[in-house]
Amino acid sequence: MAVNLFPPTAADLHPVPGVELGVAMAGIRRPGRKDLFVMRLGQGARVAGVFTRNRFCAAPVILAKKHLRNAVRALVVNTGNANAGTGRDGMRRAFCVCEAVGKKLGIKASQVLPFSTGVIMEPLPAERIAAALPDLKPGTWLDAAEAIMTTDTVPKAASRKVRLAGGEATVTGIAKGAGMIRPDMATMLGFIATDAKVPGVQLKKLVKATADRSFNCVTVDGDTSTNDSFLLIATGVGPSASSGKDLAKLAEAVTQVAQQLAQAIIRDGEGATKFVTVRVERGRSEAECRKIAYAIAHSPLVKTAFFASDPNLGRILAAVGNSGVDLDTSKVDLFIDTVRVARSGSRDSQYEEKQAIAAMKKPEFLVRVVLNRGKAAAAVWTCDLSFDYVKINAEYRT
Amino acid sequence: MAVNLFPPTAADLHPVPGVELGVAMAGIRRPGRKDLFVMRLGQGARVAGVFTRNRFCAAPVILAKKHLRNAVRALVVNTGNANAGTGRDGMRRAFCVCEAVGKKLGIKASQVLPFSTGVIMEPLPAERIAAALPDLKPGTWLDAAEAIMTTDTVPKAASRKVRLAGGEATVTGIAKGAGMIRPDMATMLGFIATDAKVPGVQLKKLVKATADRSFNCVTVDGDTSTNDSFLLIATGVGPSASSGKDLAKLAEAVTQVAQQLAQAIIRDGEGATKFVTVRVERGRSEAECRKIAYAIAHSPLVKTAFFASDPNLGRILAAVGNSGVDLDTSKVDLFIDTVRVARSGSRDSQYEEKQAIAAMKKPEFLVRVVLNRGKAAAAVWTCDLSFDYVKINAEYRT
Repeated sequence: MAVNLFPPTAADLHPVPGVELGVAMAGIRRPGRKDLFVMRLGQGARVAGVFTRNRFCAAPVILAKKHLRNAVRALVVNTGNANAGTGRDGMRRAFCVCEAVGKKLGIKASQVLPFSTGVIMEPLPAERIAAALPDLKPGTWLDAAEAIMTTDTVPKAASRKVRLAGGEATVTGIAKGAGMIRPDMATMLGFIATDAKVPGVQLKKLVKATADRSFNCVTVDGDTSTNDSFLLIATGVGPSASSGKDLAKLAEAVTQVAQQLAQAIIRDGEGATKFVTVRVERGRSEAECRKIAYAIAHSPLVKTAFFASDPNLGRILAAVGNSGVDLDTSKVDLFIDTVRVARSGSRDSQYEEKQAIAAMKKPEFLVRVVLNRGKAAAAVWTCDLSFDYVKINAEYRT
Repeated sequence: MAVNLFPPTAADLHPVPGVELGVAMAGIRRPGRKDLFVMRLGQGARVAGVFTRNRFCAAPVILAKKHLRNAVRALVVNTGNANAGTGRDGMRRAFCVCEAVGKKLGIKASQVLPFSTGVIMEPLPAERIAAALPDLKPGTWLDAAEAIMTTDTVPKAASRKVRLAGGEATVTGIAKGAGMIRPDMATMLGFIATDAKVPGVQLKKLVKATADRSFNCVTVDGDTSTNDSFLLIATGVGPSASSGKDLAKLAEAVTQVAQQLAQAIIRDGEGATKFVTVRVERGRSEAECRKIAYAIAHSPLVKTAFFASDPNLGRILAAVGNSGVDLDTSKVDLFIDTVRVARSGSRDSQYEEKQAIAAMKKPEFLVRVVLNRGKAAAAVWTCDLSFDYVKINAEYRT
């Protein structure tokens, strides 16, 4: 069902020097599937992250934010249970997992970052995770991507090589997410690692800048998850990228990987049959353009019109009018790909519906809103709202 | 499919002295259905209204707001075409309709309020409306309710009698709406008339207060329409309700009628199989309680869980956390009807899922969130998100 999204092969994904991956079947929710991975990092690795702003922030996120202050040596990630809405007991269970990983790897619990995804408000079976640690098998990035899938239908991973002054650096990342996707800081879960050596301050800036150009530009259903986390890891065993051209090149490669992963989440959005870019142009500020783009991307009426390839495009104008941005609507133009649908706030006299239908029947198209009152622009990637969205979310768990 | 909503009979709906109704088939979108009504008011009638805040406000709404400054003598309402996103040409067509009605009734065009509902961004066939005016047949409130339906499956009307010092007054109203429903000022279209005599200042206050306790408390899909209008009409031919007890009694009757109509819109929400009251209690302000209630009522994940009768209730906590209200989540309790699901921000240890399943299988239930930090409360009425919501909105028009 995913829109133009094909599973990567293990060969597509370059291993990152300084990162060791281990994967296991811990039977967290169901037996017989990869549902746990541990990422071990060498000494000197640096890690930076951005996290959900949902006030019901999950226990592992709270703990990961705290442990991020230390010299991080490992990540432990499970699917099947989000350990969110679990209060103090959830915090205790998340810490037990860190302790078990610390013990196995000979590091402190406080050097382990825990991440969880899956059902909310059920106790995390920490003992099953601990029991599975001796069974960890060396794994590829593809194994890790598979081990964090929930309603995802395709594992999400991307990889790039980039030539820096000191030699070639690798950037490889994975992500998961298909529903409850409207990251406010980052995706549900995203991990990108590079072997480049990046100073801590630069890495923190890079993770924020990357999130704003990738995971913070997507929405499936407007629901920001309790567990959103995006981590950027620089093992430092490869060439240096501490400033100037090298840092810019690395940033470009990291952003490309992040955008590919963020778009993969939308292509695999729950029930998605269309991949739609909503671009709002010539606004006064990027903020107002984003606000309008999200108003369009979140409207159930617009999303069902995408699904039907039905150019019931007044719905898009209505969403623009609902965005909360104070607008002179008589200046607004609307395009589907290159078809001008509305001009100066009302239907273009040249416009014929069959043109928009043809554009909307494609699995990917562009909705372009031109405000004609400034120079700023912003884009959001989203999908349609189909029968299968309802099916997946009505039947998930049951 | 509507949830516990049965069509009223004409006998349930008391005629309002001072109001004359005429209904016609104008063939606006399809031939052979009632799609036009005219409400004629006697001299001295007072009218007050609240309107959509959507920036793409429809042409008839702009004109109705303007004409409301005059002594209003008629309303003309059509379904099949919203005359929204139609620019200057739309304004011209709306005015033509007022002119035609004015001519027929011997009043000025500026004394006529026009209202339209239906498809957006298509030219209003004003000439068909004008041509149908000679065919207007005297109609009941039920006829009028039928003449404004779009995706509604049941006509919506309600009626009350109220005893005032000067005699018995009548309050009768109609409304329409099933999708694009998240009124910001009023419902898509709602008209309530009374024969009581109410001073203009009081009537303006009453229409706002009523909207806030009825149409402004409902949401189907979070999309505020371009045409939302709620009108309160006092013909003044009946007993006086100018202040004190009489005004309070009348206000109560008007609010009851408005709440019944607003709830009818949700019961008949597109694809609705459940009618859910979301009540947020013990907050610091009504505003924060409403914000949280709407965050729950707008979450597609929560709405699909309602549809499935699946107590995947972590989704409700996630929505609370996403509301934008700065909360101490460890104080939050969550109930489905009387079942306590979460206590102090995490799963109640006594809670068993089968209890919540039993509550959620009913066609009507209560979601109650207790913030435990103040004395304010607010409630929102909403419905679930079902296969049929997608079906209706993907197939509407086509």
